[in-house]
Amino acid sequence: MSDPFVVVGGDAAGLSAASKCKREDPDREVIVFEKGEWVSYAHCGMPYYVKGEVESLSDMLSLTPAEIEDRGIDLRRNHEVVAVDPDTNTVTVEREGERFQQPYGDLLVATGAHAVSDPIAGADLAGVFTIHSMDAAAALRAFLTPPAAFDPDAFDGAGEFVDWELVEAYAARDPPESAAIVGGGYVGVEMAEAFSAHDLDVHLFQRPERLLPPFGAAPAERVAETLCEHGVTLHLDTEVDELVAGADDTVAGVVVDDERVPVDTAVVGIGIEPNTALVDGAGIELGVESAIAIDDYGRTDRERVYAAGDCAEMRHAVTGEPDWVPLGLTANRAGRAIGQTVAGTPTPVGDIAGTAVVKAFEMECGRTGILDHERAREAGFDPVSETITAGSRSGYYPGGAETTVTLTADRRTGRLLGGSIAGEDRAAIRIDTLATALEGDMTVGELERLDLAYAPPFSPVWDPILTAAKVLNGELA
Amino acid sequence: MSDPFVVVGGDAAGLSAASKCKREDPDREVIVFEKGEWVSYAHCGMPYYVKGEVESLSDMLSLTPAEIEDRGIDLRRNHEVVAVDPDTNTVTVEREGERFQQPYGDLLVATGAHAVSDPIAGADLAGVFTIHSMDAAAALRAFLTPPAAFDPDAFDGAGEFVDWELVEAYAARDPPESAAIVGGGYVGVEMAEAFSAHDLDVHLFQRPERLLPPFGAAPAERVAETLCEHGVTLHLDTEVDELVAGADDTVAGVVVDDERVPVDTAVVGIGIEPNTALVDGAGIELGVESAIAIDDYGRTDRERVYAAGDCAEMRHAVTGEPDWVPLGLTANRAGRAIGQTVAGTPTPVGDIAGTAVVKAFEMECGRTGILDHERAREAGFDPVSETITAGSRSGYYPGGAETTVTLTADRRTGRLLGGSIAGEDRAAIRIDTLATALEGDMTVGELERLDLAYAPPFSPVWDPILTAAKVLNGELA
Repeated sequence: MSDPFVVVGGDAAGLSAASKCKREDPDREVIVFEKGEWVSYAHCGMPYYVKGEVESLSDMLSLTPAEIEDRGIDLRRNHEVVAVDPDTNTVTVEREGERFQQPYGDLLVATGAHAVSDPIAGADLAGVFTIHSMDAAAALRAFLTPPAAFDPDAFDGAGEFVDWELVEAYAARDPPESAAIVGGGYVGVEMAEAFSAHDLDVHLFQRPERLLPPFGAAPAERVAETLCEHGVTLHLDTEVDELVAGADDTVAGVVVDDERVPVDTAVVGIGIEPNTALVDGAGIELGVESAIAIDDYGRTDRERVYAAGDCAEMRHAVTGEPDWVPLGLTANRAGRAIGQTVAGTPTPVGDIAGTAVVKAFEMECGRTGILDHERAREAGFDPVSETITAGSRSGYYPGGAETTVTLTADRRTGRLLGGSIAGEDRAAIRIDTLATALEGDMTVGELERLDLAYAPPFSPVWDPILTAAKVLNGELA
Repeated sequence: MSDPFVVVGGDAAGLSAASKCKREDPDREVIVFEKGEWVSYAHCGMPYYVKGEVESLSDMLSLTPAEIEDRGIDLRRNHEVVAVDPDTNTVTVEREGERFQQPYGDLLVATGAHAVSDPIAGADLAGVFTIHSMDAAAALRAFLTPPAAFDPDAFDGAGEFVDWELVEAYAARDPPESAAIVGGGYVGVEMAEAFSAHDLDVHLFQRPERLLPPFGAAPAERVAETLCEHGVTLHLDTEVDELVAGADDTVAGVVVDDERVPVDTAVVGIGIEPNTALVDGAGIELGVESAIAIDDYGRTDRERVYAAGDCAEMRHAVTGEPDWVPLGLTANRAGRAIGQTVAGTPTPVGDIAGTAVVKAFEMECGRTGILDHERAREAGFDPVSETITAGSRSGYYPGGAETTVTLTADRRTGRLLGGSIAGEDRAAIRIDTLATALEGDMTVGELERLDLAYAPPFSPVWDPILTAAKVLNGELA
């Protein structure tokens, strides 16, 4: 009887699961189907590759296909799983137009997500990119590089996967001198830094009033200030009507409020959606934000079918309800847990706290938990927030920076619900303290009494987090 | 009836208590007796002042006497409290040889600690310092400064407090070219950096086998490597027999194993002891390490007598038992809580986790909780530890550094008992995550599933702490 562990998708969740299963149960057959060329690559590194801070595309490959196969995993690239039949425990796989059936003992759907660009008319023009594939990142970097400086050897180690036709077409063009970024989330903010590094005139368009909406008001304001200081032109509260082409097919302008801002390239980063077409057809239940519904062990509602990564929901540590926050650690952790479960040791995929960090030039921001009051009320809390700004080091010690902390708590119980942090000196990593406090169900009073580290080069006596807790606790008392 | 809140000691704990009490209960009379000139100064900043990184001595004053008086606090410097009578609720105060009685409604003993140097013969020679007073720091900085470069204006703002006779005597000397540091704890390590900044030939003598014993083996090793790279000569596992003078009374050498290492100055930093002479005479109970025994609200065993700061014990969050870990945040927090309690709102002083951080040149270290196995066994645990080294950022992102994490857990319950961290890229502040997990009574399994921050500039997908938790959890399984 054939009962392979079949994995659909060769990135963080899929390969974590495959690797863990094979390590725990070396005799189990493990097959990974990946519809494209690329496997095991670092989405989050792409803006830094485009910027030039990460030298080579291959640097962002965690594992090469050969390394994956060395683990005993049967990796099949360019194999698209087009159907799942949970009744017969088989998937239908398409390769170069041919289809075949593959039985499975256990199945993991780790199909990821895709960038949304449809709402922006003109997003399909040449010169417009979403930063959600290695080929797009490679093409954009080639576009930003003067033709004479383009070096195909920089693809060393990744050359066999890359879409050369696309890359060479952009490499041959004159580099853009100005860029539009549509969307002011992570990708937008990181791409503003990346484009600035190439000396482009950068315009960032954001439909909401604020950048980085999940981070709340204070970090958004500090990031906006930082972007402005670096010459980025912010168009907040601004809806892009369309991207328009010039003489050729290439984007040449952004139309907003009937005015046209001329640009030579554009990035659209307005969000991603879970890839669920595969399971839609199989009658597998979807949950929040149309991500695949799973239980504590990553199981879907069909037996022996698991889901993990950007295509799946996860339980939020604060609300206890399912949520969809597609991030790298979540995918890796859930994949690893499912690999272990499939190998015989049931392992929970864990909760998420929605912890995220982002860098905008020298400004660092972090966020975790529930910050939005409306969202908190929906979850049954009575939210109250305070924002403070404090130094990151003892006042007399050089190198400190103003650090802004927002904490949100439930007025009735004092429980910490979420927090954000922004500053230039070791600010982002401090969010881990709040994420840990959240998952420990701490109250603001308990947070205030934490024995956090103090030494002049690293923190004032009262860390900015403790100062924020003191202020919010005073408000709760 | 006079029922002032009387505070003995004008530093972190005492002034935090006085300020909080006065803010909460403005009508209450609050008197602070300080036996010396200096109040509200930053002990932890002294090595950086000696180094020259902190420009002026006055930078390390959190509050000036005038600012303290502006808060409505009756500050009496040069007033030494020499006796406490808890039966009559009075203290005896000595000022310029005269004594008087002061009744109190509530009394806080915040007498701090003193540097131990007695065991080192010759510690009283000229040119030998303990870094535990502002005058000593001022004198050493003056000594390190060439006479022609000495600038009395650098004492601006602190000039009225400083011991000018001492400072000018050292300012007139030729600067030392070599230095001995006796003791490899915080002060020793920080002073190695400070002396190196003045281009001295530095010898550090440490009786135990390792530097920074509370941090455990891995950080100690990394700090030792860093010190060596910076030209510091380490003499570990080496007992100093005595400091010996040269032609004048000034230290000229360190004798170890009958050999003499010639040096021009020395710092002795072999530990501190709580100042409890005052309460000894009053029959107030002492606890662990002869620090003053207190309850959850900072109360001693005598009614209306509180103790806080470096002279008092605190309850350890992991063992639940009293411990003595004299650090700045503890003093500030306990003082503030006692001020609030005295003002009418009973407020616990909180637990400690023994969280500490230290910098040695570019190396950052943190520790928290119980790391030592013998100590853990004494507290009833069955300790198991793992140490890992992992990158501080995504491998492909520049600027990362190897980060070493040690975690200790109880084998029976999986509970996290303590941890340490060392590395050059945002390592120290990461200890706050472990301190928070400890105070949340988390298991290593829970730690492993924390939703910590990930973005390439700040962390790999699995933060080094998570990697350590995975490895230790594997060991526990």
